[in-house]
Amino acid sequence: MITLASHFSSLTSESSSQFASVISINIIVTLLCLCIVIGHLLEENRWLNDSIIALWIGFGTGVVILFLTRGTNSHLLVFKEDLFFIYLLPPIIFNAGFQVKKKQFFRNFVTIMIFGAIGTVISSSIISLGAIHFFKKLDIGTFDLGDYLAIGVIFAATDSVCTLQVLNQDETPFLYSLVFGEGIVNDATSVVLFNAIQKLDLTHLNPEAAFNLLGSFLYLFILSTLLGAVTGLVSAYYIKKFYFGRHSTDREVALMMLMAYQSYMFAELFALSGILTVFFCGIVMSHYTWHNVTESSRTTTRHSFATLSFLAEIFIFLYVGMDALDIEKWRFVSDSPGTSVAVSSILMGLVMFGRAAFVFPLSFLSNLSKRADSEKIDIKQQVVIWWAGMIRGAVSMALAYHKFTNAGHTGLRGNAIMITSTITVCLFSTVVFGLLTKPLIRYLAPRQKATTSMLSDDITPKSVHIPLLDGEQQDSIVELSENQQDVPRADSFRGFLMRPTRTVHHYWRQFDDAYMRPVFGGRGFVPFVPASQTESSSQDLSKP
Amino acid sequence: MITLASHFSSLTSESSSQFASVISINIIVTLLCLCIVIGHLLEENRWLNDSIIALWIGFGTGVVILFLTRGTNSHLLVFKEDLFFIYLLPPIIFNAGFQVKKKQFFRNFVTIMIFGAIGTVISSSIISLGAIHFFKKLDIGTFDLGDYLAIGVIFAATDSVCTLQVLNQDETPFLYSLVFGEGIVNDATSVVLFNAIQKLDLTHLNPEAAFNLLGSFLYLFILSTLLGAVTGLVSAYYIKKFYFGRHSTDREVALMMLMAYQSYMFAELFALSGILTVFFCGIVMSHYTWHNVTESSRTTTRHSFATLSFLAEIFIFLYVGMDALDIEKWRFVSDSPGTSVAVSSILMGLVMFGRAAFVFPLSFLSNLSKRADSEKIDIKQQVVIWWAGMIRGAVSMALAYHKFTNAGHTGLRGNAIMITSTITVCLFSTVVFGLLTKPLIRYLAPRQKATTSMLSDDITPKSVHIPLLDGEQQDSIVELSENQQDVPRADSFRGFLMRPTRTVHHYWRQFDDAYMRPVFGGRGFVPFVPASQTESSSQDLSKP
Repeated sequence: MITLASHFSSLTSESSSQFASVISINIIVTLLCLCIVIGHLLEENRWLNDSIIALWIGFGTGVVILFLTRGTNSHLLVFKEDLFFIYLLPPIIFNAGFQVKKKQFFRNFVTIMIFGAIGTVISSSIISLGAIHFFKKLDIGTFDLGDYLAIGVIFAATDSVCTLQVLNQDETPFLYSLVFGEGIVNDATSVVLFNAIQKLDLTHLNPEAAFNLLGSFLYLFILSTLLGAVTGLVSAYYIKKFYFGRHSTDREVALMMLMAYQSYMFAELFALSGILTVFFCGIVMSHYTWHNVTESSRTTTRHSFATLSFLAEIFIFLYVGMDALDIEKWRFVSDSPGTSVAVSSILMGLVMFGRAAFVFPLSFLSNLSKRADSEKIDIKQQVVIWWAGMIRGAVSMALAYHKFTNAGHTGLRGNAIMITSTITVCLFSTVVFGLLTKPLIRYLAPRQKATTSMLSDDITPKSVHIPLLDGEQQDSIVELSENQQDVPRADSFRGFLMRPTRTVHHYWRQFDDAYMRPVFGGRGFVPFVPASQTESSSQDLSKP
Repeated sequence: MITLASHFSSLTSESSSQFASVISINIIVTLLCLCIVIGHLLEENRWLNDSIIALWIGFGTGVVILFLTRGTNSHLLVFKEDLFFIYLLPPIIFNAGFQVKKKQFFRNFVTIMIFGAIGTVISSSIISLGAIHFFKKLDIGTFDLGDYLAIGVIFAATDSVCTLQVLNQDETPFLYSLVFGEGIVNDATSVVLFNAIQKLDLTHLNPEAAFNLLGSFLYLFILSTLLGAVTGLVSAYYIKKFYFGRHSTDREVALMMLMAYQSYMFAELFALSGILTVFFCGIVMSHYTWHNVTESSRTTTRHSFATLSFLAEIFIFLYVGMDALDIEKWRFVSDSPGTSVAVSSILMGLVMFGRAAFVFPLSFLSNLSKRADSEKIDIKQQVVIWWAGMIRGAVSMALAYHKFTNAGHTGLRGNAIMITSTITVCLFSTVVFGLLTKPLIRYLAPRQKATTSMLSDDITPKSVHIPLLDGEQQDSIVELSENQQDVPRADSFRGFLMRPTRTVHHYWRQFDDAYMRPVFGGRGFVPFVPASQTESSSQDLSKP
């Protein structure tokens, strides 16, 4: 057999492009390794995280490439939305659903929905209106109403990927689930808004149109969620039914990976929200499927999903960093640097204002509906929610490319300025908000960890005393008490008495135990397969 | 954020091509799931294996697509050599190196080298000469000498991927390591031959040219092996040095994956044999790196590498099956079906003869050099080696496409016939030899399992009594005796006294213990990290 090596000997145009792709794969893999190594070495640094390191390494590489190619554009590095949406985003979102603390997520479900849906509408409207107002005074080409609305949607998109990096699920579970969950719901809202913008007659907005929007949002949300849940349940059912007695780790792992990806691609095929679908698929798989597989499959899936997600995240930031230096886009900017700075500043300001305009009022409304003080979102938490959700990242970049370029080229002046402004806003917000969020959380809530533990855990002391939404049972008390070491047991009882939604969890759990788990498996409903555990341990010690 | 969904609403040519790629990803993922499910259901069937199932499913899908598109060519399904060499092959070969029984492999090292290097030269020469002789009588267009030599190399390429499917490492370790190892060495030989064919003046073959060939083979073999070994050692050193005390499973797994892939891509970059490099990288990683990581990283890497390899294998066979029905290629064939059948039959016959021409003579020579009867390759084993190595698969396909097409099109009559003949030979050999190898092994050596156990294990009873090449220590005696349950202990002692290469293993082990392991880690040289084991077990039981 002859490898690619042979291609290089004949230097036709085809083989030289193959050679170029070998070179670029080499560069990217080397950079990924570098990011992991440096990220590990600087792990203790409170200012940096893996994303920002990847962003800087990507940026540095862009400078080197620019220098080596003497300023000519290298199209190898141009951001491709396909790569992002088809290959990089699904593993990240699936892993987030797979590893999310389901209790926390479902407890804040209503708040998350309100923030994600209404918040996005408010935020994008403000950004659109602001852009219409300010851009007319600047000389940046002509935009129609659709363009302005698209700008609103693009800059209203909270970057779930960045949020994962900045907020810590263990330290600030409430804030994490709220801001991240908001980003997920955000996706469904954006799809509806974006499609509506392209279909509706925007000059005649009336209540009927608003109802149509609401209807399509609900349709999209429910169908996407159902698709994810059904895919997860099918995988659980199949593995429980057919694999019992003769488990094959490789097949199980492959099937879980493929079906999770399939759910995303199905959603894309039917114009649903793939992000929402794969997120719920992850939740269902971790609740049912994961408990039906062998011990080694559990370890493997948990870590390999996390690894894939980790690699995809680093890759995205590396890519954004490298792409920022693509020359062609900056040509128009160099003619009028003032305009570009103005546009970027205006957009950043609008993002901050647009987010403030829904976080504080909606938090106020949410607090009105809560009786217990401990459930309310205090002002410090509101500031963190506002701040952490301000990061704009790869998602905004991908949307901007989709809207303002054709096949990666930026010919028109207005389009070029929008692209460079998006890059500027993304880099600025990722670096500044990314850097300052952790210190801000420490400053605003020095005992944030304890506070949120209190806040989150004394709401559900039933995590210890009664069955839980995500299926912890009495025997997992050891693990739970590890998580909750800050919470005095007395508080738990107080919370237990105060909790109004206890019944919802209780009924779900009853339903789950009576109808779902007997069919789809889940913890305690599938016989433990001891062979794999002992076998794998002894094998692990001997050879791979 | 807006997903791909939004692309579909605007039906420009760009978005419709994106929609097409979404559809084809959906089809492929669905088919992969189907292959896994059917492969699992038919696991007990002695005639089928995953490859053949995937081949048939791919073929069936090709028929359906052909029917749906009313016989027009669907270029979505055309075999792309890039996809194969850059993405599908590396995980398969790496995993083979990672999971190979190193003892067995290195014990047969000389035989493997002779079969792989000299055997390939003999086999490809015979096929080339035969093609020159027979094709001149058939009307299939004009080929020059280079084309004929290329045909020889293409059809001399044993498909390592298929061999992995047909031979079982546990049942027939000796045959597995010989046939598979031969396929790996084969790659280096082919690169040298193919490059030589394109560079040398073929009309003046002389002893000097032969020496040059030998020189470049050794250069390529040694450099490729070194590159793989060095990459593996760097990963082992880094993880041992920097990760100690604060292991991060995700980073470790990501780093091992990336560095393994990097070794392959580096080899491609420097025109070395990527397959040889990544194979040795896998061996070194399983010997050193794997022992330096956490318990959960071990489980994860072992199973995720196997899963990736499994998926890549299924995908290749699916792809070959689907591609077989590409209409354009068969247009020329339908004009003269007789010629095509003749060419395919001639090539298949030449493959069989060419392989026989080196397997039996080289086995004879190899036996001459061995003193102990138990070490000799008996006639039944020779038949199996001859038979199992006859399968031609995706590698031959990729080479044929590289040589006889430009960008997937098959315009010339001669080229089209060569492509269709390659497909025919691949399908025929995969199905027929793939189906019959297992029964043949059972027929020729009903106690093959016991026989090869005897043959392989009484050669190295030191696997029980003295330290081993691959680092089993005295405390792993339990695991070893499991593998060797068929071997009476008395035989072990006999083998122990007879074994001439004992000293090589012994010196390597001394060197390994004195210099290599203290630096690069490995079993027994890295403190056990108990946290991960106990932690992961308890976590495994709670939530992902």
